[in-house]
Amino acid sequence: MLDQTADLNRVFQALADPGRRLMIERLARGPASVSELGQPLHMSLAAVVQHVQVLEASGLVKSQKVGRTRTCRISPVALRSAEHWISERRSLVERRLDRLGEYLAETPASPDAGPEAPPPSH
Amino acid sequence: MLDQTADLNRVFQALADPGRRLMIERLARGPASVSELGQPLHMSLAAVVQHVQVLEASGLVKSQKVGRTRTCRISPVALRSAEHWISERRSLVERRLDRLGEYLAETPASPDAGPEAPPPSH
Repeated sequence: MLDQTADLNRVFQALADPGRRLMIERLARGPASVSELGQPLHMSLAAVVQHVQVLEASGLVKSQKVGRTRTCRISPVALRSAEHWISERRSLVERRLDRLGEYLAETPASPDAGPEAPPPSH
Repeated sequence: MLDQTADLNRVFQALADPGRRLMIERLARGPASVSELGQPLHMSLAAVVQHVQVLEASGLVKSQKVGRTRTCRISPVALRSAEHWISERRSLVERRLDRLGEYLAETPASPDAGPEAPPPSH
């Protein structure tokens, strides 16, 4: 449970950066080398490597070095657990708001239309 | 587009903290005051207020002060956009992996079984 919490911390932290989200978008289309990932980002290779390390630590990305090229791949498990956490809470909120909507639709609008309303005075 | 990026940065940043995720879980069940939100967190009221401010800045939570009590509510729009961003990438990855699996299943396992294989030498 603690590990899962730590993982979600790292996954959401990794997704909080627009450059890292761009890397995820690129990797969703297929594996890429570190320098390919950096191409649209206009930053130093050292900065790109740091972002890749954050993505790897979160479990969103796995990489493998063959010769002088490090190839990165997306790992869908971490994406799935982040999506699952959000969708559970979102659907809980929506079900509650639906029930509230139904309740309000069934409740008479006038405040003195209920059974507790006093009879009109003469 | 820039605004949307900034929003996702803030939403994922807000979700990267376990205390703030606990607040979201509580608010998914219904509105709560700032002090109610802080109860399970064992932190100062000032720290709780700071977390609530991060949640409000991200759009995940809205709050309203009536008298001396600030009541917080979840706003499902920001949850939905974060979920949408993740699910789009996750389904792209899964479709690609499915196609790769189909390709591998249809491809003969032996490297020289294809039509391009040279005839055996005598």
